[in-house]
Amino acid sequence: MIKAVIVGYGNIGKFVFDSIKSSNDFELVGVIRREPDIDPPKELEGIEIVKDIRKLSQKPDVAILCTPTRSVEKHAIECLSMGINTVDSYDIHSSIWDLKQSLDKQAKKFGAVSIISAGWDPGSDSVVRTLMEAAAPRGVTYTNFGPGMSMGHTVAVKAINGVKKALSVTIPLGTSIHRRMVYIELEDGFSYNDVSNNIKADSYFSNDETHVIQVDNIEDYIDMGHGVNMVRKGVSGKTQNQLFEFNMKINNPALTAEILIAVARASMKQSSGAYTMIEIPVLDLLYGDRETLIKKLV
Amino acid sequence: MIKAVIVGYGNIGKFVFDSIKSSNDFELVGVIRREPDIDPPKELEGIEIVKDIRKLSQKPDVAILCTPTRSVEKHAIECLSMGINTVDSYDIHSSIWDLKQSLDKQAKKFGAVSIISAGWDPGSDSVVRTLMEAAAPRGVTYTNFGPGMSMGHTVAVKAINGVKKALSVTIPLGTSIHRRMVYIELEDGFSYNDVSNNIKADSYFSNDETHVIQVDNIEDYIDMGHGVNMVRKGVSGKTQNQLFEFNMKINNPALTAEILIAVARASMKQSSGAYTMIEIPVLDLLYGDRETLIKKLV
Repeated sequence: MIKAVIVGYGNIGKFVFDSIKSSNDFELVGVIRREPDIDPPKELEGIEIVKDIRKLSQKPDVAILCTPTRSVEKHAIECLSMGINTVDSYDIHSSIWDLKQSLDKQAKKFGAVSIISAGWDPGSDSVVRTLMEAAAPRGVTYTNFGPGMSMGHTVAVKAINGVKKALSVTIPLGTSIHRRMVYIELEDGFSYNDVSNNIKADSYFSNDETHVIQVDNIEDYIDMGHGVNMVRKGVSGKTQNQLFEFNMKINNPALTAEILIAVARASMKQSSGAYTMIEIPVLDLLYGDRETLIKKLV
Repeated sequence: MIKAVIVGYGNIGKFVFDSIKSSNDFELVGVIRREPDIDPPKELEGIEIVKDIRKLSQKPDVAILCTPTRSVEKHAIECLSMGINTVDSYDIHSSIWDLKQSLDKQAKKFGAVSIISAGWDPGSDSVVRTLMEAAAPRGVTYTNFGPGMSMGHTVAVKAINGVKKALSVTIPLGTSIHRRMVYIELEDGFSYNDVSNNIKADSYFSNDETHVIQVDNIEDYIDMGHGVNMVRKGVSGKTQNQLFEFNMKINNPALTAEILIAVARASMKQSSGAYTMIEIPVLDLLYGDRETLIKKLV
């Protein structure tokens, strides 16, 4: 059994709990929360909840980081220094390489493994993008997200001063162009215009067409469904017009959680260091006997 | 530069030649043919063509096996014994595991690498199937082939008494059920009804809806285009109805050839042994600087 700890028990953390409970090879040895005693969720009855990972009575093999993306590095550095593997779904594409360099050093120093940016994009989509590129090395891949709620973007909106509650929905416009529909509840005393401008200036939004809409009750707008459509038209050898397409319609946090569990499993099979999903064999993501899996899937 | 030799210069071999010529990191050091002096193809001018791989003046790093599937093992065993990596697109699903066991032993004995069953199915489709299974571990994946020419079924029809020339086209009916459209030129003195019944009774066809159509000139019907539609509906954690779909419309031998080149490249980065495509990181399939690729694709 792989001993796992969930670090951060928000939206993703709760779905990771579901995935752990549905997996035959995982044992949940604890949950890390900032306020362990406040309002402990019913489903965690009997599970050790602590503020500091060092206080857990059992040492986990792997920490599943379900914190906001911007605090992933801090938590990973801490866990790795204890020789605990880490997995995360860090989603700021432009700084994935830097995170990998930082965690690779730390992981190697303490003989641990870190698998980063493992959700669906970055994550499983990255694997498909890489495979499509291998199949037709010249050409263009378009990744079209949505329609659906973007967790990363929603968290980024919530971090902006004056935003009480928020929802960011991604609308695909084709050829990797997206519109961001941002729904907010405003804090008292803040101006819609100021908050809207601050959202549009944030690096999560500054490159996309963004609309900010003030609403009374954000809960009425929330749907965790999401999707992607990836297309590549390219050339294999000297043969043009090779066509590839990958589509998903999924519950976003549920898929992110399942991928996190899969890479947590894979982390047990890699040598020390930090990896993105395209650097590990897909077979390592699965539970089960190697011979049976190869006979079923190849 | 990776020094490659093409073993067998039929349909796939010719497309592998195109892929090698289109790749910046490969050098073709020879072609192995049963009859090296008969009718040498114009595009191979200046390339060493020999019958026996031991006669090549340069030792290749990797042999790209483009022989019929049933002679893959023999050629791989020979190349591996010389410390030459091998790649193949062996496509008899039921005996892939046995081939892997046999070549793994040989590869380890001589410090070489073999990547087997690397075409599109088995091959790149296997990677997508495995990834879909990791994303939603409970559920069913359907692989729907075509419309397109099936090489294996065409060979099976040609083996039946009274068939002069043949073409078997696979038509997808959904949920992994296929119709076989078989076009034949009849030998003189044979009855259409007898031949048709024998085809339908063959183990390649007896489980599928099969139609046999007599034509005058089979060449008029041949189109190397093929396709696949893979769908999975499954469960991530406790969340039902997660939907995944992968589609391709491709030139069959051109894609097979490009995948063979990609795994030939990957073979240079693995430790000794035999692998299927789901056991190697997809990043290893690509040419280029690791940092650039990760920044582009993850």
